[in-house]
Amino acid sequence: MLGIELNRKSELQLWRQIYQALKELMLSGQLKAGEALPSTRKLAKELDVSRNTVCEAYDLLLAEGFVISRQGAPTRVASGLCIEPVEPVLLPKTKSKLIPPVSVSFRTGRPDLRQFPRFLWQQLLHKASNELPLEAFGYTGPQGLPELREEIAAWLFRSRGLKITSDHIFITAGATHGLHLIADILRGDGQKILMEDPCHTGMLRTLKNKGCTIVPIPVDAEGIQTNYLSKCGNTGAIYVTPSHQFPLGGILPASRRASLIRFARENNLYIIEDDYDSEFRYSGESIAPLYALDPQRVFYVGTFSKAVFPALRIGYVILPYKFQDRWRDLRTHTDVQNPPFEQAALAEFLRTRKFDRHIQKMRKIYGQRRQVLLESLEGAFGSEWIAYGDSAGLHVAIDFPGKRFDEGFKNYCLQNGLYITPVESYCIEKGRHQSKLLIGYGHLEPAVIIKGVELLSDIITGLNI
Amino acid sequence: MLGIELNRKSELQLWRQIYQALKELMLSGQLKAGEALPSTRKLAKELDVSRNTVCEAYDLLLAEGFVISRQGAPTRVASGLCIEPVEPVLLPKTKSKLIPPVSVSFRTGRPDLRQFPRFLWQQLLHKASNELPLEAFGYTGPQGLPELREEIAAWLFRSRGLKITSDHIFITAGATHGLHLIADILRGDGQKILMEDPCHTGMLRTLKNKGCTIVPIPVDAEGIQTNYLSKCGNTGAIYVTPSHQFPLGGILPASRRASLIRFARENNLYIIEDDYDSEFRYSGESIAPLYALDPQRVFYVGTFSKAVFPALRIGYVILPYKFQDRWRDLRTHTDVQNPPFEQAALAEFLRTRKFDRHIQKMRKIYGQRRQVLLESLEGAFGSEWIAYGDSAGLHVAIDFPGKRFDEGFKNYCLQNGLYITPVESYCIEKGRHQSKLLIGYGHLEPAVIIKGVELLSDIITGLNI
Repeated sequence: MLGIELNRKSELQLWRQIYQALKELMLSGQLKAGEALPSTRKLAKELDVSRNTVCEAYDLLLAEGFVISRQGAPTRVASGLCIEPVEPVLLPKTKSKLIPPVSVSFRTGRPDLRQFPRFLWQQLLHKASNELPLEAFGYTGPQGLPELREEIAAWLFRSRGLKITSDHIFITAGATHGLHLIADILRGDGQKILMEDPCHTGMLRTLKNKGCTIVPIPVDAEGIQTNYLSKCGNTGAIYVTPSHQFPLGGILPASRRASLIRFARENNLYIIEDDYDSEFRYSGESIAPLYALDPQRVFYVGTFSKAVFPALRIGYVILPYKFQDRWRDLRTHTDVQNPPFEQAALAEFLRTRKFDRHIQKMRKIYGQRRQVLLESLEGAFGSEWIAYGDSAGLHVAIDFPGKRFDEGFKNYCLQNGLYITPVESYCIEKGRHQSKLLIGYGHLEPAVIIKGVELLSDIITGLNI
Repeated sequence: MLGIELNRKSELQLWRQIYQALKELMLSGQLKAGEALPSTRKLAKELDVSRNTVCEAYDLLLAEGFVISRQGAPTRVASGLCIEPVEPVLLPKTKSKLIPPVSVSFRTGRPDLRQFPRFLWQQLLHKASNELPLEAFGYTGPQGLPELREEIAAWLFRSRGLKITSDHIFITAGATHGLHLIADILRGDGQKILMEDPCHTGMLRTLKNKGCTIVPIPVDAEGIQTNYLSKCGNTGAIYVTPSHQFPLGGILPASRRASLIRFARENNLYIIEDDYDSEFRYSGESIAPLYALDPQRVFYVGTFSKAVFPALRIGYVILPYKFQDRWRDLRTHTDVQNPPFEQAALAEFLRTRKFDRHIQKMRKIYGQRRQVLLESLEGAFGSEWIAYGDSAGLHVAIDFPGKRFDEGFKNYCLQNGLYITPVESYCIEKGRHQSKLLIGYGHLEPAVIIKGVELLSDIITGLNI
């Protein structure tokens, strides 16, 4: 009598329940080394199951070495099985936070998903999964689908004048993924990375997780202040967003671009150029990449997260030729490759120029929303504010001279239903941008933008900061 | 006269050609700081284009800071622009290798893609992309689609008796990706990882790329030899494949499992359990994971690359509770999340039990092929060989006592149209498995398996090794 209880309603087959019960008895030492198990016939009768059911349990116990069986002799418990049982760890219940629901979220980096041609995308995805050759379901290599790389090269040529072949392009799972692999390529002990300050906190975290030491370089309305670059020993790279600085939005002027390239050459360091959303320039064409000035010194990081949709997880990196083999090795041994379906669908989206039309459409929509935002701000705050980086993108930084915004302000806004981030939250060295707020508007309908500015105005007036 | 030449057949718009030509003249110093550009009217006439075309070029040059413009004054070149031009790097042509085409590839880890229910998968993918809520196109968090995690938990329960909730499951982009994140979680300076020897060279490379020091532990026909485990200072983890050791195929006996857990507890180290293909066990049910013995000390790594198809890029990790927050942080800042479509399609594949049916079907097909292989070997080599690990998986290790296989043998086989790997290639410490070859047969039709064994027999006889 082993005291095994069976649950005949469980999804777990009866033989497996018997197997598990016996295993637990052995692991806990209730069934001891050398002890004989009941015969399959006897246990089957006792549990009111077929003998086959018990045999199946005994077979797996035998295959896994829990029991030993010899012709003619009873099945016995193997030795050395007993281990202290562990208490199951129960996951703590998520604490219910006492934050009221957000009524307006000025979060940054959120494209408007409702405008995405979802039906068209489904068709493209279906077509792609239909037409992909069988080999595309196997391992197809770390560089990415050739058709997609061809189309990205063509897009970069027609939108930015970049002369590049598909051989130079390496598909990634987005910009963060690109930066993470570049950091691994460039990694050395105590690697220093120069970084714009303020900067994207996610990208900062990615580099810090890699063990990089971050050296902040100040940013003004035009982007990174190259006159602050000084000789840094053992520096590996400099991370910049020259087309549209995140978060202040500056377009890096040509003279600073030239300084940056000269500095990189003199100090033998690499430039990581993150071109995260320059598709959405309102007043003219996309800015030309820094990459074009020195393809052997610049890693160009692009993504389709903003231009298509975030969950797509497709971006690309153009990297100096000497690092291509290292990249292939690293990618193969971190996450192998991208899945093929989205790549094929995106290639078709680009090839048919429906991507270009989507960009044109979104540029117009985002431009109109930006206009609504700026007008609302004027209505609420008169002329006591200055917009930074309002020529491109899905967000804008607003400077309210004389005011101070900090984490306390952010939390107070949250309590009042408004999600908004002070630029200070993105600063490595604190104190230089306390009067600025970041307003993400791309994903918001005009009415919501207007409501958000009213909320903000009420809060600022009420707090009298 | 600036010598600008336009190509009216180019995909690059005329204004961008003008912009690029002017930019190159400034960067190279042919147009110098302070120099006045021709008026838009004059240049338009000279180039035979509309004035608007020239204006667009000038506008972008102005936005990017290449030129300075003041009311009433001519547009002038900004200062500090000149940088040394770089020679374009031409990618070397891929060298044509003088290797004849492979007629039989005994490569390992290759499922038979022709047997995959492709049409069903397309339907599932289409349904998923149709039904996913709009939010699924945005950022949805690093843990993975809840529906998929529910279905994986249910599958692990019905197939392996594992009692687990979806909260414990973290979706990855496959087993390699899981191991790479675990290594980052456990990483310390000079981290030592104990590893089975022989082992999967890809996984070994993943850990070496992380800077881990590898301590090899010998493997025999039953798996890792736990009696070789000794106290290792500053050891972080031990990587094992207990359900089906790669490459020798042993099922780790219960007593060694208990030793492993005791050793891990005594030395305060973690176990990484890679359950890479135990779905395909021929003679009975899937082996129970080591994880069940101590969920707070074991990282369980699973993948659908073999059971569904490699390019799917979906796997999962079940990790000790205390590392869940660290995992979320690391995943968010390396590659953010998986795309949603494949996740939703796989969830449906599991929910409808069509996955289970596919596994059953493939188990039968692979079992038949294994039989063909073993019979062919008997026909060709009589009884002068021993099969290792032939109870599961897509490959088998064959020991030819007295023979020696090395890289030279592998290359010789390649020259003769046969891809086959000596186990020695997977050894960290060389010399212990020289008489064994690895034969991957899962992806091969019976006729090809027979042909491959004939080829192998001819080569071995011819070489007289």
